[in-house]
Amino acid sequence: MKFKLKGIMKLSKEVPGIGDDLEKFFTEAESDILRRGVPEGQEHEAAHIKSWRLEGDTLHIEMESGRRVRAHDGLLRLKKPLGQLLGPKYRVGVRGISVTDYTMEMEAPGVSGIPGLAELPFVEEATIKDGTILVRFKPLEESDLRKHVVDRVVKHARNLVESSEDLTVQVTRATPGEIIARSKKREFLFDGDPTEEAMRLGWVKKFPGRGQWFYGPKITALHRALEDFLIERIVKPLGFVECLFPKLIPLDIMNKMRYLEGLPEGMYYCSAPSRDPETFEEFKNELIINREVPMDLLKRGIKDPGYVIAPAQCEPFYQFLSHEVVSAEDLPIKFFDRSGWTYRWEAGGAKGLDRVHEFQRIELVWLAEPGETEDIRDRTVELSHDAADELELEWYTEVGDDPFYLEGRKVEERGIEFPDVPKYEMRLSLPGREKGVAVVSANVHGTHFIEGFSIRETRNQNIWTGCTGIGLSRWIYGFLAQKGFETGNWPDFIGERVEGVENPRIITWPRQE
Amino acid sequence: MKFKLKGIMKLSKEVPGIGDDLEKFFTEAESDILRRGVPEGQEHEAAHIKSWRLEGDTLHIEMESGRRVRAHDGLLRLKKPLGQLLGPKYRVGVRGISVTDYTMEMEAPGVSGIPGLAELPFVEEATIKDGTILVRFKPLEESDLRKHVVDRVVKHARNLVESSEDLTVQVTRATPGEIIARSKKREFLFDGDPTEEAMRLGWVKKFPGRGQWFYGPKITALHRALEDFLIERIVKPLGFVECLFPKLIPLDIMNKMRYLEGLPEGMYYCSAPSRDPETFEEFKNELIINREVPMDLLKRGIKDPGYVIAPAQCEPFYQFLSHEVVSAEDLPIKFFDRSGWTYRWEAGGAKGLDRVHEFQRIELVWLAEPGETEDIRDRTVELSHDAADELELEWYTEVGDDPFYLEGRKVEERGIEFPDVPKYEMRLSLPGREKGVAVVSANVHGTHFIEGFSIRETRNQNIWTGCTGIGLSRWIYGFLAQKGFETGNWPDFIGERVEGVENPRIITWPRQE
Repeated sequence: MKFKLKGIMKLSKEVPGIGDDLEKFFTEAESDILRRGVPEGQEHEAAHIKSWRLEGDTLHIEMESGRRVRAHDGLLRLKKPLGQLLGPKYRVGVRGISVTDYTMEMEAPGVSGIPGLAELPFVEEATIKDGTILVRFKPLEESDLRKHVVDRVVKHARNLVESSEDLTVQVTRATPGEIIARSKKREFLFDGDPTEEAMRLGWVKKFPGRGQWFYGPKITALHRALEDFLIERIVKPLGFVECLFPKLIPLDIMNKMRYLEGLPEGMYYCSAPSRDPETFEEFKNELIINREVPMDLLKRGIKDPGYVIAPAQCEPFYQFLSHEVVSAEDLPIKFFDRSGWTYRWEAGGAKGLDRVHEFQRIELVWLAEPGETEDIRDRTVELSHDAADELELEWYTEVGDDPFYLEGRKVEERGIEFPDVPKYEMRLSLPGREKGVAVVSANVHGTHFIEGFSIRETRNQNIWTGCTGIGLSRWIYGFLAQKGFETGNWPDFIGERVEGVENPRIITWPRQE
Repeated sequence: MKFKLKGIMKLSKEVPGIGDDLEKFFTEAESDILRRGVPEGQEHEAAHIKSWRLEGDTLHIEMESGRRVRAHDGLLRLKKPLGQLLGPKYRVGVRGISVTDYTMEMEAPGVSGIPGLAELPFVEEATIKDGTILVRFKPLEESDLRKHVVDRVVKHARNLVESSEDLTVQVTRATPGEIIARSKKREFLFDGDPTEEAMRLGWVKKFPGRGQWFYGPKITALHRALEDFLIERIVKPLGFVECLFPKLIPLDIMNKMRYLEGLPEGMYYCSAPSRDPETFEEFKNELIINREVPMDLLKRGIKDPGYVIAPAQCEPFYQFLSHEVVSAEDLPIKFFDRSGWTYRWEAGGAKGLDRVHEFQRIELVWLAEPGETEDIRDRTVELSHDAADELELEWYTEVGDDPFYLEGRKVEERGIEFPDVPKYEMRLSLPGREKGVAVVSANVHGTHFIEGFSIRETRNQNIWTGCTGIGLSRWIYGFLAQKGFETGNWPDFIGERVEGVENPRIITWPRQE
């Protein structure tokens, strides 16, 4: 990698006769300021001042570098010491820095296309020729440099040209799709479509919102029976303590999670009303007179989207710990939440009970030392296997291939620690279908959220987080798909909680074809 | 009330020599078409054709009326029969109707101001003089007339000038604030601020979203203990059956509930992402490079707000029954929901645990004949009293003064049946404060939702709905305010479920001042 920079340092006034001091400063900088932190043997990768000249109050500098102390970082490093030199002696300060011309070259043997690279912010031009990518940046202000925009563009570039290997494979050592455990074969007692049958029997009724259902008495009784059972078998034995997690999550938290850059198209966004009584008065009047929602007035009356409705359920845990300090001997911290719905927007269009936008889940989330973090995760999976066996369900567990917390990582620093296997996914078999329905997703995030939320161990020991989502709505789907709707065919301890529960009689529902 | 109209009926072509037929048609209309449905003795209130003249293909008409068959309704009534007369005989149709000039006069003795009236849609001018309100409308198209915009403006006008009596008093016979029951006095065991104390002890931690909290292990244990107890004492004995109600509610449902026009400034609005991969790609790139949420791109990437997060919790029940037919002998239908958070935006700014934006509630909702609807409501209140006594809490219950389902009614037809007392509100006393915290809100809606959601009884017998919200988050606040945080001071059956539960140790939290 090669960086070439033309930059400017603006002095607070013109000072004649400082040429010698500047010459000395820049010469020394080459072996001191610009070398700090560069490993031995890699000095040729560090920033180097190619030329400089003073015109009035403006210092023009040309710099070059390889990967270590990139040219723009070098320029930033010079500012403060230069001020410290000139200030006392000549009463002059360094007012600002900017980069007028900046290019980056990166070797990319065998790469023929760089889709999207030229469209990135701050990129003036991006080309590929003879196995080398060339990026020319737009002029950059000091604040751009300090925000590391160049580094991010570079990383994005590197990512774009990297092979299109699966992300999990790139980042970790796991093989997605590999099946690590499976149950014995079970006899399936139902061969219909669970969604169709649930509608026909009036266990559910379609709700007008996309991917949403009204869950009637019988399926709710099944829901509560399975919830109690899974808590008894998985959550309690592992000592998880219940909390109530908020479900309306400020965008800033999603941003810290890197979820906003990972899956922004998969969430519902929320706006609070603004303090604007007149617009709402007008809104009410229009609505009363026309009986149609005046959308323009509504949009004027609400703020910019400031929240999402929780997609991952574990968000508040990291926020709860944010900027706190824990001691390794007090770990693990193990919380669980089952306080309400979470939401995902499914682009492909949701139809059945297996792929809903609004769903219930028991979410376990913990903070521990790395080894224990993995152990806890593994135990949640093992106990899930046992629970499914006790429910007489057929299941298998595989290495997951889309850990949401890795999404935003593609173009980020690789300094974050990752577990060998970030995600296990347990699935219940679906009769007649190759792929089962995912009912448990068990994740170890390494230091991803530790870094993002600034959680500290008091002696800076390594700490990790993990989370396991027990998808209740999915368990119900898999259970019904394998066992059908006759409670007599179910394990007694579940069936007896649903048997006595009846729908109210409604003449026109459920509709029989 | 007096309506004066100048209107136009456009014929499909000019037809000479039809004057006599028109004269005969309009004369007969006065005693036939324009009189239909007018009660005896009120003929002077009906629409009357003051003059007409034909110019080319345009028929100019002046009409006047009182309250019965208002002038614009009269004009609409003429269109079809006139077409039926002219069509066969002259091969000419009536193409369209419009009103070029329309005024309404309304007596309003003693009224001196008409705030907001002149700002209503379709209103050109509104004045008040000598105890009479005069409204002049803008030109109206046939579609405006058919949407009854005039009638709604008139009703809104009538409401604006009606006395500013409390709405509950106007619509029903209840006296808001009247206390109908109260417990014996209790000794309070705590005199601090429950919110401050809960924070100090680490039972809760502030969540960044306004009016939101992270509820830790101990308060969650209290929450579950109270939830189980209240279900056991109130919900189960009355035979309510649990369902899972969606919590993301399409705007159309809020509109049918008349909640959108009642309290639009008190809800969170939600938008789904639009199918626009390019915008989201750009969004991700900007976010990755700048680390700040690019709000313009986000707003471009999402649809218009299409939902609110449930404020009332009972919304899905009416939707579930919408357009269904029930038989009175199959009633009551009694459902309850406790599946997640509901949300209100509090304009005044929420601070403590007593006035939160995100809260948990057990919601009971039912459909029954009118008398039974009231009986069920009363029973939910009585059992709530008993439960509070058993918890050794001090409480009182009053007639409520802001039934949300009446809000949108202000300017609506009064043909809806209302109960004598629409709302009871039970409150737990707060030490040192005059007003207690509302923990149970028990409502009978009459036919409000029956009409709004077209729910039918098979022989058109009267059916009503009711709902009782058991505000768990509020019960906890009142409980802690009266009894404090020492579990030893609580009733044993609650205390023993919280005693063993401990916070994890975190070095920096809870912060001690």
